Amino acid sequence: MLEELKKKVYEANMLLPKHGLVTFTWGNVSQIDRESGLFIIKPSGVPYEKLTPEDMVVMDLNGNKVEGRYNPSSDTPTHLELYKAFPQIGGIVHTHSSWATSWAQSGRSIPCYGTTHADYIYGEVPCLRVLTKEEIDDAYETNTGRLIIDEFNRRGIDVTAVPAVLCKNHGPFAWGKDANEAVHNAVVLEEVAKMAARTEMINPDVKPAPQELQDKHYYRKHGANAYYGQKGL
Amino acid sequence: MLEELKKKVYEANMLLPKHGLVTFTWGNVSQIDRESGLFIIKPSGVPYEKLTPEDMVVMDLNGNKVEGRYNPSSDTPTHLELYKAFPQIGGIVHTHSSWATSWAQSGRSIPCYGTTHADYIYGEVPCLRVLTKEEIDDAYETNTGRLIIDEFNRRGIDVTAVPAVLCKNHGPFAWGKDANEAVHNAVVLEEVAKMAARTEMINPDVKPAPQELQDKHYYRKHGANAYYGQKGL
Amino acid sequence: MLEELKKKVYEANMLLPKHGLVTFTWGNVSQIDRESGLFIIKPSGVPYEKLTPEDMVVMDLNGNKVEGRYNPSSDTPTHLELYKAFPQIGGIVHTHSSWATSWAQSGRSIPCYGTTHADYIYGEVPCLRVLTKEEIDDAYETNTGRLIIDEFNRRGIDVTAVPAVLCKNHGPFAWGKDANEAVHNAVVLEEVAKMAARTEMINPDVKPAPQELQDKHYYRKHGANAYYGQKGL
Amino acid sequence: MLEELKKKVYEANMLLPKHGLVTFTWGNVSQIDRESGLFIIKPSGVPYEKLTPEDMVVMDLNGNKVEGRYNPSSDTPTHLELYKAFPQIGGIVHTHSSWATSWAQSGRSIPCYGTTHADYIYGEVPCLRVLTKEEIDDAYETNTGRLIIDEFNRRGIDVTAVPAVLCKNHGPFAWGKDANEAVHNAVVLEEVAKMAARTEMINPDVKPAPQELQDKHYYRKHGANAYYGQKGL
Repeated sequence: MLEELKKKVYEANMLLPKHGLVTFTWGNVSQIDRESGLFIIKPSGVPYEKLTPEDMVVMDLNGNKVEGRYNPSSDTPTHLELYKAFPQIGGIVHTHSSWATSWAQSGRSIPCYGTTHADYIYGEVPCLRVLTKEEIDDAYETNTGRLIIDEFNRRGIDVTAVPAVLCKNHGPFAWGKDANEAVHNAVVLEEVAKMAARTEMINPDVKPAPQELQDKHYYRKHGANAYYGQKGL
Repeated sequence: MLEELKKKVYEANMLLPKHGLVTFTWGNVSQIDRESGLFIIKPSGVPYEKLTPEDMVVMDLNGNKVEGRYNPSSDTPTHLELYKAFPQIGGIVHTHSSWATSWAQSGRSIPCYGTTHADYIYGEVPCLRVLTKEEIDDAYETNTGRLIIDEFNRRGIDVTAVPAVLCKNHGPFAWGKDANEAVHNAVVLEEVAKMAARTEMINPDVKPAPQELQDKHYYRKHGANAYYGQKGL
Repeated sequence: MLEELKKKVYEANMLLPKHGLVTFTWGNVSQIDRESGLFIIKPSGVPYEKLTPEDMVVMDLNGNKVEGRYNPSSDTPTHLELYKAFPQIGGIVHTHSSWATSWAQSGRSIPCYGTTHADYIYGEVPCLRVLTKEEIDDAYETNTGRLIIDEFNRRGIDVTAVPAVLCKNHGPFAWGKDANEAVHNAVVLEEVAKMAARTEMINPDVKPAPQELQDKHYYRKHGANAYYGQKGL
Repeated sequence: MLEELKKKVYEANMLLPKHGLVTFTWGNVSQIDRESGLFIIKPSGVPYEKLTPEDMVVMDLNGNKVEGRYNPSSDTPTHLELYKAFPQIGGIVHTHSSWATSWAQSGRSIPCYGTTHADYIYGEVPCLRVLTKEEIDDAYETNTGRLIIDEFNRRGIDVTAVPAVLCKNHGPFAWGKDANEAVHNAVVLEEVAKMAARTEMINPDVKPAPQELQDKHYYRKHGANAYYGQKGL
């Protein structure tokens, strides 16, 4: 079932150790097949070096396991909520990558200090509040997803323009049109988080990049007037 | 004698350079066989690239070498004290891994700033006082172990919930149910130490993660109601 | 056309991932053939692992593509302006390398704190002002080049003595007599940027190296009285 | 001539890139044959990937090249002065390794914050004053060596107990009984420099390790009562 997609999700998961985003099993990638309404996700706690495409778990949007010999990632309910709320999202990744997690632990959103950030993410990467005791005790992973949805909606943030978020005292989620793009954005986020911290270390009084420069770089790569890269590559 | 265990302890030692926790010979791993009361430890000062399973040293809990052509690690008396005091511990590791050692040198315990920490370690990683001149001159390595025992007992800390400690101006010890889990915890400690330092760099006024979030993540992975990972994997 | 040069430019581009200066496609190298007035540059947005010498794009100094199946790097107009203004420059490189970009984001020039810097770069690495809204909206990449030219001319800086610049909120450009030397200088810049940040972290009140020491090291390697290295190596 | 020693010096030089201590050609190692009074050193500016044992340069203690097709390292006069002044030294290494150079650029000696430092270096790693204009213009590399000698003698520092020094605004020199031990000490220095900077980042008010702990670790590895490691390994 969905063998092609299992392979893609497997490969996207294997990019996490390749790009240095995970220690041990601290990360998971999923992708949804919008036609069938099923999504595929990494099993919980299985080491990357032992992972195979067949180990991927097939889930439906009610949270039922449809196929797979393993339990799905414990973060599955968060992925599920995001897929249900945002039809634009096709792939999701969660990691504890070091710099992004350090920002999440610090409780601060990542300001846009330059064009590396602006090329991919429009405006700051928001750091959300920590969940309340009730939200944690009740349905922690589901409520993690719901908080992301509520905050993006309340702030009027477009998930395609801001493809990442920081969960306070926890770590980042990133997404994209598929699993591969989600991982790509997770790598960008880690690099941007690293450079933002170093930027503040070099100049504690630094201000975000001017809005017109952020606009220029974002729209150089996105939308109807984009001219970066090759058409269809 | 204990050939199987020698191999395991050898392999656990070889994980230290693999995970970037040691420079030269600055680390050692041991594991105890509770039935015979013997433990196996890395020889002192032998480079990892020359190490073989046969080089491992077999010790008894009185500190006598039972087998092995080399001297055991100079930290052997510390391992021995911990094995005697804590029957829950099956493996012990000592390194000078860079971030954990920097915290130990700074004399500060590592606060729990997020779920990466809480997933493995319940509460802060304690940094103990430095030994007195008498404790150093008398039986340095033995007293290092005794201080850990005294402080964990005095503070009522469960060694299975807090599987690591920082010895001031020295470096970390970590442990687990066997040598492999001890190394696993040493890797976690280094990652947690790195992210905690960066968290404070990004936000000098940061506070530890809320207790309810620490509880959630710790008990998601430990105890009767754990639901992370796979049963028996 | 210019097959030999295409190969050189390709190889210089491949040095960027080798030296850890790029993530994904965030960098580009070019070299000019002064005889024909043509320069060769990396195509836009093509991953390094798929790049071949044949993918290189040949441009003339009016900004016309002369050969190549791909679009040239989106930064091509910046390269072009620099080649037109500075006949001493034979190769140019742009990256988002982490430490140099962090300085660029911080809006600070890199002071010369030691001989590593002075061996290659005479005086500070200047960080230029950000472009105005008009400069950004009008012809962003061309104006990036023109600002570099204007500022180097206004400040009387010799581009052979200062082979690198920081564009505020963006990142570094470096150059040299050919593509290979340009990449060499980009590696130096990243190392110098890293050590300058750490120098200030260790001593926030640090002052630049004395002028006589900067002179000694720069002229030990450059000019008529140089005595570092081997003649003709 | 001295073929065995050339090979050793070559191999010690090749350890520099292996341990990440050099970028490009920014480092050199030498070893002296006390019987003949000749020392062997890396040629100046030759890339490590092209280096062979035959490229090593043989020098006498008057600074004359005795054998070799290349110019010796431009730092040769510094090595020469140290060999003449300190008969205990058999090998010398100079690098621009990142953390040690950052301390040198900051103008601060590295305090002994823990046992990693104390295991190899007795007391702080001194950072010397910068040379005067006269000393720089006259015989820069020779005067670099003489300043080290004068300062170690004036302060009564034993070069076998403190096998490294920082030259202000320049970088580190390290030494040992032979080239291999010199490189070993250069690796230790870099690690110690890194951890000292991070220690101060974590606790800006940190104090050096107590003297009795420094003594314990230093004498655990050195002198008549040493008990670390294996006899003759």
